[in-house]
Amino acid sequence: MRISELAAASGVAVPTIKYYLREGLLPPGRATSATQASYDESHLQRLRLVRSLVEVGGLPLAKVRAVLDVLADPAPAPYTAVSDALAALPPYVVETPPFVRATSALDEIGLAYDPTSSAIAQLEAALAGLEAAGRPLDAAALGRYAAQIMVIARREVDAVEAQRDPEVPAELADVVEDIVLGTILVEPVILALRRLIHAALFRERHQGDSAAGDQKPAASR
Amino acid sequence: MRISELAAASGVAVPTIKYYLREGLLPPGRATSATQASYDESHLQRLRLVRSLVEVGGLPLAKVRAVLDVLADPAPAPYTAVSDALAALPPYVVETPPFVRATSALDEIGLAYDPTSSAIAQLEAALAGLEAAGRPLDAAALGRYAAQIMVIARREVDAVEAQRDPEVPAELADVVEDIVLGTILVEPVILALRRLIHAALFRERHQGDSAAGDQKPAASR
Repeated sequence: MRISELAAASGVAVPTIKYYLREGLLPPGRATSATQASYDESHLQRLRLVRSLVEVGGLPLAKVRAVLDVLADPAPAPYTAVSDALAALPPYVVETPPFVRATSALDEIGLAYDPTSSAIAQLEAALAGLEAAGRPLDAAALGRYAAQIMVIARREVDAVEAQRDPEVPAELADVVEDIVLGTILVEPVILALRRLIHAALFRERHQGDSAAGDQKPAASR
Repeated sequence: MRISELAAASGVAVPTIKYYLREGLLPPGRATSATQASYDESHLQRLRLVRSLVEVGGLPLAKVRAVLDVLADPAPAPYTAVSDALAALPPYVVETPPFVRATSALDEIGLAYDPTSSAIAQLEAALAGLEAAGRPLDAAALGRYAAQIMVIARREVDAVEAQRDPEVPAELADVVEDIVLGTILVEPVILALRRLIHAALFRERHQGDSAAGDQKPAASR
């Protein structure tokens, strides 16, 4: 397809596609003349991936490139490839090791982890922030979160594997792409649901609470 | 206490404290001389709150101010105050209504919601991104996430209420502060745990997988 057709199919404007081509985020099309090139399904897929990482994931382009580099040339062992890809995702926490709060809590709840994972730095920063705000989260509380999240994560990993034909060996890049997209695109879904459920529970419990000066019951809002 | 003591107790540098004072994010101390002021426990608490919102929550100062304004002058009905405060938190999604994907899925799973909540816009953006990436999330899948998150959220709301003495009517600002801090500070904990658990499950299932050129088994890394 031509670049205008690629734009129509992807919903990404032609100038943005050209920018991605110049930046190497999208591989060049097959040249059909001095000024035209032809694009295929693989370009459309890549374009959707870049858009999702930018718009939903909020990744800066340099980080999009880091994720794409991992997908293009994954480390030879699947586990390492996934770790590398997840490490390229935000947030970019500038905590320095040792991550004592995070690792000691994880040891206590018995969750195996890679000590170089960026999620450890993220967890350390979050636990330090809760402590600073006078709301420390102990290992027992962290363990209760982990138990619930284990149910979610196990279902997600099962779903990725169930979609594969066991007769066809999965391309490593596809597996990594599934996990990276599943991680980054589903995160805002989880956070939005938690906020909506907090609000719903709060409304349920305080329905009818109404302070002086408030004319209507809260439930009618 | 003096400003230097406030800095030592909070871990926030004196120039930063002075900046927050100028910006009105921290109320002025009680003047003890022409050049000195005295600060109390309420300043320390406020300072911790501002730091958490900035460092853990990643809020820009203008949004910190919006959250503080809600805390300083909450809407008269508790539910509205909480909604207002949550709406001041990131991410700041620029989706425009109607939020058809989000609201129809929530209707289908039977979760009550405030259609003006910022979490609805956030959910809409996330569902649209998943769809664009060729990984749509249907209402049934969203319902499975919601069931797990309901367990987490109910425990959180119970914990906030259990800490209160039922004989003492809670100050509305305190309740709102609990919910806002609980929302924003715990979000990175949840996401970090999910990434760590994904990596652990992936490692567990692919232990020993090793492609050509990879000398060591993945499990030894």
